[in-house]
Amino acid sequence: MILEVDLDSEVPIYQQLRDRVVEAIAAGLLRTGSPLPSTRALASDFGVNFHTVNKGYDLLRQQGLLRINRKSGAVVSRDRTSGPPEPDFVPDWTARATTLLAEASAHGVSDEEVLEICRGVLRSFAAQESAREGES
Amino acid sequence: MILEVDLDSEVPIYQQLRDRVVEAIAAGLLRTGSPLPSTRALASDFGVNFHTVNKGYDLLRQQGLLRINRKSGAVVSRDRTSGPPEPDFVPDWTARATTLLAEASAHGVSDEEVLEICRGVLRSFAAQESAREGES
Repeated sequence: MILEVDLDSEVPIYQQLRDRVVEAIAAGLLRTGSPLPSTRALASDFGVNFHTVNKGYDLLRQQGLLRINRKSGAVVSRDRTSGPPEPDFVPDWTARATTLLAEASAHGVSDEEVLEICRGVLRSFAAQESAREGES
Repeated sequence: MILEVDLDSEVPIYQQLRDRVVEAIAAGLLRTGSPLPSTRALASDFGVNFHTVNKGYDLLRQQGLLRINRKSGAVVSRDRTSGPPEPDFVPDWTARATTLLAEASAHGVSDEEVLEICRGVLRSFAAQESAREGES
């Protein structure tokens, strides 16, 4: 699995790193137990400071998606098959989704188009997962 | 219309201010031409520095939702009835939606539940809009 970040983006690198790992878990490309590269290796690949990678990994750890261990390094600790989310997760996610959905509505995207985009994104996660299962 | 921010939240005040205005536009509580409070008045209401309010307003201006004018102050410049979004908006929004949807999937929220939450949020915008129309 190759994590890619865009050094020219306005989105901070640690945030991009976090986002790409979350997306890879959603798409089934990373699963519980999958090891992530060491912070030093990834920092060297990206050409960034290893504190930047640490910051991204730490966000993932705070969200309960990553376990960081001195011996085994960073390992994915949750995936879509790990059962229902923590009780706080859905209300918190809904609040953030409200803001994002409001942005689309305020800019004149119709409810139907918004839902169609969401359905398409969710289908793309499932498609990546089946493609991967087809390979293995 | 009352804008509220949570001073104890981890979300920066300028970001909360931006989010609440976007949500009010989506819910039809603010429309093209609606005036927003002056930065000094709002800063005084919230008990924050007026630069904080300025920063929130500036984000809204960059997103094409607000016009700031020395004479008339901050005025909403777009709402859901203003026609289709700018061409760049949907791809950019889809990328951000992908990350948010991935978070839900990674935490084990089913696709159906995700779509149901999104439908509920969109319905709540429409409901606020009709409640307001009923009043006027």
